[in-house]
Amino acid sequence: MSNKTVNVAEYLFTRLNQLGVKDLHGVPGDFNLVALDYVEPCGLNWVGNCNELNAGYAADAYGRLMGMGALVTTFGVGELSCLNAIAGSFAEFCPVVHIVGTPKRAAQKSGMLLHHTLGNGDFNVFADMSKPITIAQTNLMDPATAPAEIDRVLQACYVNSRPVYIQLPADMVMEEVDGKLLDTPVDVKPPQSDRETENLATEIILRKLYAAKRPTLLLDAGAQRHRVEDLTEDFARKTGLPTFITPMGKGVANEESPNYAGIYIGKGSEESVRTRIEESDCVITIGNVKSDVNSFGFSYRIGRLTSVDLHFDHVVMDCAKFENVYMKWLLERLVREVDPSEMQMEKVDMPVRKNVELTNGEAATQDVTHAWLWPRISSWLRTGDVVITETGTSFVGIWETKFPAGVQAINQTLWSSIGYGLGAAQGAALAMKTSGGGRRTVCFEGDGSFQLTAQELSTIIRQDLDCTIFLIENDGYEIERWVHGMKAKYNDISKWRYSKIAEVFTPEEEVSQHRVKSYKVSTRSELEELLADEEFSEGKGLHFVELHMPRYNAPQTLIDFAQSLSKKPS
Amino acid sequence: MSNKTVNVAEYLFTRLNQLGVKDLHGVPGDFNLVALDYVEPCGLNWVGNCNELNAGYAADAYGRLMGMGALVTTFGVGELSCLNAIAGSFAEFCPVVHIVGTPKRAAQKSGMLLHHTLGNGDFNVFADMSKPITIAQTNLMDPATAPAEIDRVLQACYVNSRPVYIQLPADMVMEEVDGKLLDTPVDVKPPQSDRETENLATEIILRKLYAAKRPTLLLDAGAQRHRVEDLTEDFARKTGLPTFITPMGKGVANEESPNYAGIYIGKGSEESVRTRIEESDCVITIGNVKSDVNSFGFSYRIGRLTSVDLHFDHVVMDCAKFENVYMKWLLERLVREVDPSEMQMEKVDMPVRKNVELTNGEAATQDVTHAWLWPRISSWLRTGDVVITETGTSFVGIWETKFPAGVQAINQTLWSSIGYGLGAAQGAALAMKTSGGGRRTVCFEGDGSFQLTAQELSTIIRQDLDCTIFLIENDGYEIERWVHGMKAKYNDISKWRYSKIAEVFTPEEEVSQHRVKSYKVSTRSELEELLADEEFSEGKGLHFVELHMPRYNAPQTLIDFAQSLSKKPS
Repeated sequence: MSNKTVNVAEYLFTRLNQLGVKDLHGVPGDFNLVALDYVEPCGLNWVGNCNELNAGYAADAYGRLMGMGALVTTFGVGELSCLNAIAGSFAEFCPVVHIVGTPKRAAQKSGMLLHHTLGNGDFNVFADMSKPITIAQTNLMDPATAPAEIDRVLQACYVNSRPVYIQLPADMVMEEVDGKLLDTPVDVKPPQSDRETENLATEIILRKLYAAKRPTLLLDAGAQRHRVEDLTEDFARKTGLPTFITPMGKGVANEESPNYAGIYIGKGSEESVRTRIEESDCVITIGNVKSDVNSFGFSYRIGRLTSVDLHFDHVVMDCAKFENVYMKWLLERLVREVDPSEMQMEKVDMPVRKNVELTNGEAATQDVTHAWLWPRISSWLRTGDVVITETGTSFVGIWETKFPAGVQAINQTLWSSIGYGLGAAQGAALAMKTSGGGRRTVCFEGDGSFQLTAQELSTIIRQDLDCTIFLIENDGYEIERWVHGMKAKYNDISKWRYSKIAEVFTPEEEVSQHRVKSYKVSTRSELEELLADEEFSEGKGLHFVELHMPRYNAPQTLIDFAQSLSKKPS
Repeated sequence: MSNKTVNVAEYLFTRLNQLGVKDLHGVPGDFNLVALDYVEPCGLNWVGNCNELNAGYAADAYGRLMGMGALVTTFGVGELSCLNAIAGSFAEFCPVVHIVGTPKRAAQKSGMLLHHTLGNGDFNVFADMSKPITIAQTNLMDPATAPAEIDRVLQACYVNSRPVYIQLPADMVMEEVDGKLLDTPVDVKPPQSDRETENLATEIILRKLYAAKRPTLLLDAGAQRHRVEDLTEDFARKTGLPTFITPMGKGVANEESPNYAGIYIGKGSEESVRTRIEESDCVITIGNVKSDVNSFGFSYRIGRLTSVDLHFDHVVMDCAKFENVYMKWLLERLVREVDPSEMQMEKVDMPVRKNVELTNGEAATQDVTHAWLWPRISSWLRTGDVVITETGTSFVGIWETKFPAGVQAINQTLWSSIGYGLGAAQGAALAMKTSGGGRRTVCFEGDGSFQLTAQELSTIIRQDLDCTIFLIENDGYEIERWVHGMKAKYNDISKWRYSKIAEVFTPEEEVSQHRVKSYKVSTRSELEELLADEEFSEGKGLHFVELHMPRYNAPQTLIDFAQSLSKKPS
């Protein structure tokens, strides 16, 4: 492509393709239609979501798995519909490119009274609204600067692993620009660290590690988002440090590794895990997010002189912040320089995961309860699975599930927007299809959450994806019942016939129809039967399970957490 | 209630009730749950929408019909999901109160790392995003000022007919405040005009009117939004002025009145209408919005010395803006002071509405085409109907439908957000139920638009509303095909089995089940049969019609407009 000119849309879509975006989410609208003509010629698959919020959720999950996700919306109406998803990507550190088709430049400059405007001639108002929830923005008004501007924001998106915002006026789409830059990949490495600070940080960390008797490693979401999972594994293996994860970091560690020590959730942890971390004299954390849910109501008990916190671009230890020290370079260096023979780690037994004991009532019932479900799922999961757990009973329940090696988890522990699960399932399943297939996407979502974004099931069918959905039918917003209003009507929802919904979204004449299967499951033995079914467990096509669980049943950890919430000033 | 204290939630909900909000839309979330305990005790019905965007659309339509609409969402995740709807209410002048349940005050002040935040301690970021799309905002952090603050924003909402934003921290809900203010209604009258300017404006308008040989009256959406429909009718009757409407003003005039002269759409008008307006020597417009769609691509040909434009708070005439002259007071005065005997209006025949002539091809087919449908619907409509037309083929098609007296129209000619129709139908049907029932809510919506917000059909069923929906099945985003990409795949959508969808949303055990009926109609005779069916036409319960119309068929006016668009710099 080097010697020819390309137009702005081709430049943008080619760059996305180079950066791992092979599928473009979004919804057509009159100000983006011309741009959409260039999607497929640039080698991208156009998804065509049912609505923009769902497209945003899908792009978020796609970005978590593929390195970058992207969606196209239209000015005003389209872009505002997905702001919740974009804000979620910002909070959760997900690399999403939000491209907005805007009116022609002349119309913007003269403040014309166009549809999709507020009627006040202000064409910047929506861009201003997106600014605090994106890490970089550009308005492509000038062909001379467009390629560099595109590169700048895409780089910011990838490197910071956060969403960016691009306005593409309808009459800029076909403006010609120099295609030569496309021969040079966008540099997506993190910036170099400040050398002196990194030297000092390395020295301090190694000194603390060598002096420690009971050092530990705690992995969180940041390790995944900033793409240092392999480095953390190298570091854990070389040092032999017991490795813990957090709820938001579920899936970051290999739970089958001998180093793996359990999930730390402050006082919501298993006792052996909690004491092992809290009695540690050097806790190295990677990408830790000390949010209310992730820390079980701010209940970490790790001293500031004990902990070494590696973040994307800085380190916190000894009550000080060491800036411009990038996690990736620091970890590379620690892996290289650490000398295990200098360590004085005591030989301590790893925390032993207790087998979950069902109470008498739990053991007697055939109901699918949370206490029974989540441990049970462990052995059904397979290496390579992507497991999505919706905010609600599921994202807490999964803490009790032990993952095989190589399972990736998707949740919104921080942003916690209900409805995310199904959109994310579409994005994840498409990422799996695009990257070769053969891996399952498994989503657990409550009925209340499902209702927010239900139509995106049809996109899963239309794109012919492999996706298994467990729709937990428990008559409403169960997590909210435990927070407040156990018997309140406002926590109830409309009772849908979930097992019929996939059929409604499947075109009668479609060949792919046989790839859509629905199930209704109400007892443990029915679920056991389903999990034992090889065709079901293969996970090809859409498997939609209406899974009845008792109202007022929730994971014990969630109940404890909800009760602690009502005592906190939050 | 005068002698007792009330809590903040009671104060707020009681005020809403006083202002006409009898039904509260929204979605529960952990930061608003405590407030929801007070909804029903304050005499309001909690709707419980499937998602926030749909709730926003519903509240918008409800507000258009009831004087005010309101919805409750939760901090961050919930509120951002409905910003598109709120922006639409702002653009279209609809009175909507957006109440957001926020974290406790102490948590906000200390910047705690809570879920539903961006993780950066900024608790103002979402309020800042709502600011440019609302006319007033308040954050209820102080019990001492809360009642006055609530009154201030509710007044601004009602008077300006635009959305407002209220943050209600979870721990403010039960703070006690003085209930005495509740004995005095919120003053919802527009401000007084500037006396001298109003005197002068009245004098000029009457002088122009008296001098005119061919004066005309053009009514637009502003007449409805600023609640002067009765005054305009009085004025038209007293002066005998030929009365025209615009597309956005559909439903504002009584189309059965002898004064009614037609719909003016610039060069998209019928010729006799266009010449009558454009040759008028005094065009008095009420609440006119000269947007691209409403003016058929800015094709008005009315001179600035000829027109007198009454807006909410000002008048534009003789190339000047007369500020602080409120439409309502000015119209009251004009009705009072105008002396018809001073007028020199020539006796001119009213424009005669041509009978739509179907082309040979149109006349021969059994297909339900737009050319056939919209005139046909005229005689099926009844006094009292609320008719919602979705952005797309419907909101243009309805221009060809003649309304009986007393039909209210709902559309988004300016904001044009697809998906609005179904949410609006829920809000409108609920408003009709609450105000006594017996009136039909009829919604025309395309399949592409329906897919954005489809789940809200379940709320129509759950709230047991009377609503008739014509779902136009034409294989995709038809209006966009005419704008760009006639054969492009991105304008196609997933093919749903629409006639089965209402059943999926109807609980098996519900008594109301027999109130849900679905139909599949593909020919004119099938539609004729349905329209002739008295039970169907009575409009009790939900009637959901999957109405097949040919792909690539659109109202001729839409085709003309789309073609003019591609030549404009917009």
